[in-house]
Amino acid sequence: MDDKLLKHFSKIHALTDEEISAIDETMSSKQYKKGTVLLKEGQTSTEAYFVLEGVIRQYYIIDGEEKTTDFFSDEQWVVSLNSIHVNSPSTHYLECCTDCIVLVGNSEKGEELFTKYPNLGLISRKLMENVFAEQQAKIEAFTINTPLIRYQNLLKSRPDLFQRIPQYQIASYIGVTAESLSRIRKRLVTKSKK
Amino acid sequence: MDDKLLKHFSKIHALTDEEISAIDETMSSKQYKKGTVLLKEGQTSTEAYFVLEGVIRQYYIIDGEEKTTDFFSDEQWVVSLNSIHVNSPSTHYLECCTDCIVLVGNSEKGEELFTKYPNLGLISRKLMENVFAEQQAKIEAFTINTPLIRYQNLLKSRPDLFQRIPQYQIASYIGVTAESLSRIRKRLVTKSKK
Repeated sequence: MDDKLLKHFSKIHALTDEEISAIDETMSSKQYKKGTVLLKEGQTSTEAYFVLEGVIRQYYIIDGEEKTTDFFSDEQWVVSLNSIHVNSPSTHYLECCTDCIVLVGNSEKGEELFTKYPNLGLISRKLMENVFAEQQAKIEAFTINTPLIRYQNLLKSRPDLFQRIPQYQIASYIGVTAESLSRIRKRLVTKSKK
Repeated sequence: MDDKLLKHFSKIHALTDEEISAIDETMSSKQYKKGTVLLKEGQTSTEAYFVLEGVIRQYYIIDGEEKTTDFFSDEQWVVSLNSIHVNSPSTHYLECCTDCIVLVGNSEKGEELFTKYPNLGLISRKLMENVFAEQQAKIEAFTINTPLIRYQNLLKSRPDLFQRIPQYQIASYIGVTAESLSRIRKRLVTKSKK
């Protein structure tokens, strides 16, 4: 078991040795090559991912065009609850933008674990709250900010993405065309030279 | 205690008499007049609401203009986790669009309850998952659909809102100006007459 996950859990609540072994038996580490699609539109997801290395992208295909809605990297959870929870087919895709190492958990086994170890149930609830709060913050940021501010915030908060992700995907995530993003970047470069 | 909440909880897991009394002692029913602001930008929220009657609107004020991002009505949870969870000031407002009856819970008391009664912790985790899944579905719908489709879906899924909410707030929620919404409506009326 990777230490990162245990540290991540321990921040919320201390773990007993028995709980650590139980987590170890339930989640498994997997490596995926860049380009691997983990979830397709129409599939039902029963897995949750904890990213150890690499970047996973969430996107939709709308009228033949990709619309990127999220990037998940270091120690972030990827949970497609709309399809896990109500068992309905996913409407989005999950794809590895880079080579990735992730811990994979199965939702059914997770439930067994949370029932047997209430402490892990508590950790799971807190994590769910964190993920929800992050999502709310993202919606807010998208609602409040202009594309320029969104771009600047992304540069500040996740500079690693810019080395690893193609421009057009970043543009899509910010909600502009690749051409608009190019203009935004030029404007910023000109400003910084003045 | 209102029966609606107990039924809502029981759908997830059966409740013991002791758990019912504990919930009863923790959540209280409150009535608010139309126009009451439950949460303001800059305030830190420590309350969660379960709507029994009426509609609560979530909105931001951006450059002096309101941007409506959600309507909560019958048996929906209103959780401003970004401010509850990280204890940071809220960036949005919550306002009663109509006279409202809601059950109010305090986040700190909630935590005590979930620790004492693991079963209620489980219910809370499942509810959190539901709320998260609903939010994911909303983001999806907003990403995928045109304003016209969003309007038609809202008409189908929440027809009650149209009697109770001013046009300009519905327009803002759909992501168009009031004038655009007016054009969408006219187009639909003309189509249905053909």
